[in-house]
Amino acid sequence: MRAHPDRIAALARRSDARLLMWDNGAPALNPDGRLQWSPVDGDPPLFLGLDGEVPHFSSLAPGDVPIDSRAHFGLLAQLDAFDAPVFAAALSLANWHRRHGFCSVCGLATTPNRGGWSRACASCGGEHYPRADPVVIMLAEHDDRVLLGRQPHYPARRFSALAGFVEPGETIEAAVARELFEEAGISVRDVTYLASQPWPFPSTLMIGATCNADSDSLTIDLNELDDARWFSRLEVEAALGGDASAPFLAPPRFAIAWTLLDRWVAGVP
Amino acid sequence: MRAHPDRIAALARRSDARLLMWDNGAPALNPDGRLQWSPVDGDPPLFLGLDGEVPHFSSLAPGDVPIDSRAHFGLLAQLDAFDAPVFAAALSLANWHRRHGFCSVCGLATTPNRGGWSRACASCGGEHYPRADPVVIMLAEHDDRVLLGRQPHYPARRFSALAGFVEPGETIEAAVARELFEEAGISVRDVTYLASQPWPFPSTLMIGATCNADSDSLTIDLNELDDARWFSRLEVEAALGGDASAPFLAPPRFAIAWTLLDRWVAGVP
Repeated sequence: MRAHPDRIAALARRSDARLLMWDNGAPALNPDGRLQWSPVDGDPPLFLGLDGEVPHFSSLAPGDVPIDSRAHFGLLAQLDAFDAPVFAAALSLANWHRRHGFCSVCGLATTPNRGGWSRACASCGGEHYPRADPVVIMLAEHDDRVLLGRQPHYPARRFSALAGFVEPGETIEAAVARELFEEAGISVRDVTYLASQPWPFPSTLMIGATCNADSDSLTIDLNELDDARWFSRLEVEAALGGDASAPFLAPPRFAIAWTLLDRWVAGVP
Repeated sequence: MRAHPDRIAALARRSDARLLMWDNGAPALNPDGRLQWSPVDGDPPLFLGLDGEVPHFSSLAPGDVPIDSRAHFGLLAQLDAFDAPVFAAALSLANWHRRHGFCSVCGLATTPNRGGWSRACASCGGEHYPRADPVVIMLAEHDDRVLLGRQPHYPARRFSALAGFVEPGETIEAAVARELFEEAGISVRDVTYLASQPWPFPSTLMIGATCNADSDSLTIDLNELDDARWFSRLEVEAALGGDASAPFLAPPRFAIAWTLLDRWVAGVP
């Protein structure tokens, strides 16, 4: 469908076509936590897709809100399994369009293309696609304890899984090992993929893994982390349960770090 | 190190510093299949890293070779486990620099930054990072047969695993299911991650998976594929073995599709 602008335009004219509403730089939610939609008027730049026969569109986000606003993280927590990926796709794409008005090849202006899933440069013919940057996020285990760290911007007492971008030339497994060596000074093996999650702040693919550390002796990179510590299964269980006496505050439930910790406590895999 | 241009410049002045040589748009190989290096003269834009104490650098690729030249695929096949990721990182980065001379936010010129691992815009302050685009590549299984497809540009008789880019808002598992539904009309479950591989043509992270199809009835998207067929374990084994009577030509051994097929034949999940 994205290769056929005439068909997308015809879908926008359907009376049941829906347009995603925006609020303060993110998709707007109803009081019941569902995405808010309005009738389509005109030719919206972003074709989100069809739900059954019903076409869904979006405008682009207003340009005056930070694209990694932590105020938006909590919105994800309210969404159900239908709305969450729509929210993530719309927010990632809208923020990508905001920062890609010009062609990186020749410097001239680009315009949305393929229903908003690329931008085209009429000057040099370049076509540019939205990013989904792979990030590894991982639990290293040693002697039945798990390594968690504190990033400088975390709320008080929060510890979570270490993470970092996969670089060109790396496998997922190599990125896990490099990040843990760089940030915590540990060597790991048995890297095992567990689950993935799109994270639209601004547009990453979180790739969750576990691994085994050869030692529990840490050399923390204090440019990246405020702290890193090993926690026992009982300590993690208390934190996930929201126990006030737990030694740390768990990551939010909708983040993949929560899932990694929950499965580790349960002994999966 | 990348945050300290003075330290990188000092490394470039070391007498043992090595500069990657280029040939026809790709890193150059010796007759024995190792990457070719020369002494460093000046201030090369790309700091590849340290091997022990020895600093490794690269210039950027010359600009007149297609960035997804299939002539370069075979070079990867010759490389060992040390050189292959260096080749992949250098080629991905060089090609990324070639297509990112201008700032996508404001349209003005950018310059290499962080030892060549980003580009900075002095005009608007934007910083831009190299891409590593996640691509899912997968085997769907049904009734002890596996689904392979032919892309239009493949050599004669070649069949390989289906693949496609992960889009913003998707998990790895959702991307596998969407691609197989779009390209072959099948519904799948039990998506299982198997392995990953950086693929520097131009810069993707290949994420290999297996899954089970609910049916073997295919609806092939002829815009994407010339053909798609189910192959038995014996047929795949013959193709991997290079058997002239095999019903198809296997993907090259250094591609992750070969590994997926090899493990499937061996019965490794």
